[in-house]
Amino acid sequence: MRILIIGATGTIGKHIASSLSEQHEVITAGRNSGDYHVDINSKISIESLFRKIGKVDACICAASCEARDNFSTLTELDLFLNMKGKLFGQVNTVLVGQHYLNDNGSFTLTSGIYADTPAKGLTGGGMIGGALHSFVRSASIELPRGIRVNAISPGMLHSTEDILSVLPGCKPVDMQTLTAAYKKSVEDLINGQIIRVYE
Amino acid sequence: MRILIIGATGTIGKHIASSLSEQHEVITAGRNSGDYHVDINSKISIESLFRKIGKVDACICAASCEARDNFSTLTELDLFLNMKGKLFGQVNTVLVGQHYLNDNGSFTLTSGIYADTPAKGLTGGGMIGGALHSFVRSASIELPRGIRVNAISPGMLHSTEDILSVLPGCKPVDMQTLTAAYKKSVEDLINGQIIRVYE
Repeated sequence: MRILIIGATGTIGKHIASSLSEQHEVITAGRNSGDYHVDINSKISIESLFRKIGKVDACICAASCEARDNFSTLTELDLFLNMKGKLFGQVNTVLVGQHYLNDNGSFTLTSGIYADTPAKGLTGGGMIGGALHSFVRSASIELPRGIRVNAISPGMLHSTEDILSVLPGCKPVDMQTLTAAYKKSVEDLINGQIIRVYE
Repeated sequence: MRILIIGATGTIGKHIASSLSEQHEVITAGRNSGDYHVDINSKISIESLFRKIGKVDACICAASCEARDNFSTLTELDLFLNMKGKLFGQVNTVLVGQHYLNDNGSFTLTSGIYADTPAKGLTGGGMIGGALHSFVRSASIELPRGIRVNAISPGMLHSTEDILSVLPGCKPVDMQTLTAAYKKSVEDLINGQIIRVYE
């Protein structure tokens, strides 16, 4: 398969790119790195990327949904700005990319544990994940030409003191398990699923 | 209890107001109707409402999350405008209202079946519901002074031909069951719960 990975130089993206490139042709894109540059906040930039790279069978977005906030002073604007890249960027990639993917292609998006499990100071991240899960369920019945869409919801990647303060007892996600989830979404026939990778 | 109902003249709001006023003091507010006027799109309007009415023990938002869209031409702007009142309006009510509710008070928000069950042309409504559910879970661990928050997720209120075309076999929600869900959120001690009222 020909697979586009957006955000391929992040912690998750690096591992997915390395694993999938064993058997597939991987094209990487990112804001400041990768084979192609793209700003997923911009519909025009996404359109331009898909036109440049030509048809692909799979598109993976390896973003992260984390952003800290203070609930007692949190505003609509804070939440909106938080959503701009991490939610709308991924949603835009599907809305634009639906017209460019090969028949029976797939999108794989990235949400996060806070959609299901609240943690202090992570209201914005939780809302992004929750909205993304519902988007995936809706998009799975809307996408044309057999195109599928799933989300991978990773637990925490690291177990730093900072993270342990909001998620006590948190164990970092095993990267092999996480990479296998992305592989399943791309290579299997599942559609509209949220694969939760929590430990 | 002293209970504020925002959107008390809508289909759901009318039933809740009628049921709760048997045992409680009910204050109603809405954009163009009710004891007080409020535009929940505006933080200033919500602040002004809470200042005028004085302390309350419970605040109910009886909005609806429905809005039709066309997935093949859907844009970020469509989704954002859809979210503005139905998601951010309710979120704003909690973010502002947290500073005005009595100790051990409660918020009850309204989401909808599309958060869990996708239907053609309802991606925006689904995303609003999904984001609202995650917001409720996060807010439930953030709110001060014993204040609680829950969401009621109603199924369809009517079983029109239009609705049957996207949700085949849909049976309208029983209003007594739905009203009982709001009553439970206000009078019980539950917190961070999504009460799904689907038939």
